[in-house]
Amino acid sequence: MSLFESLFGKKETSASVARDRLKLVLAHERASNALPYMEEMKTDILEVIKKYTKVKDIHFTTQNNQNIDVLEMEIILK
Amino acid sequence: MSLFESLFGKKETSASVARDRLKLVLAHERASNALPYMEEMKTDILEVIKKYTKVKDIHFTTQNNQNIDVLEMEIILK
Repeated sequence: MSLFESLFGKKETSASVARDRLKLVLAHERASNALPYMEEMKTDILEVIKKYTKVKDIHFTTQNNQNIDVLEMEIILK
Repeated sequence: MSLFESLFGKKETSASVARDRLKLVLAHERASNALPYMEEMKTDILEVIKKYTKVKDIHFTTQNNQNIDVLEMEIILK
């Protein structure tokens, strides 16, 4: 699976299904503890995105796997 | 390949190799044109990351694939 597919799911064959959306993935590989400021940083990054784009909807997901924490934000644009 | 592997390369078997690093992936799936403000938005997001973390080194890569533009930043933390 390519990075593109892992970002937006399976590749669609028709170009007509393309939507305007942003996906932001913030992954932290940590040697020790989780970053205590991750939540605040996430909020600030989201503020930046809102400053530049017209956000219609946002979905968050978080995953972790051993020493990697991953935050995904999917931002549907107007 | 999982999202984790596509983010940080092949999974290492030894926990001792874990480093403190952040990876930020900003992907834009576009129905029409590229976002004109992408460059400025990238700079602002980077400012947010620098506000919270001690950055040792940053690598940027960009990729595009049909209607998806992907910007990756790998941030090595102190």
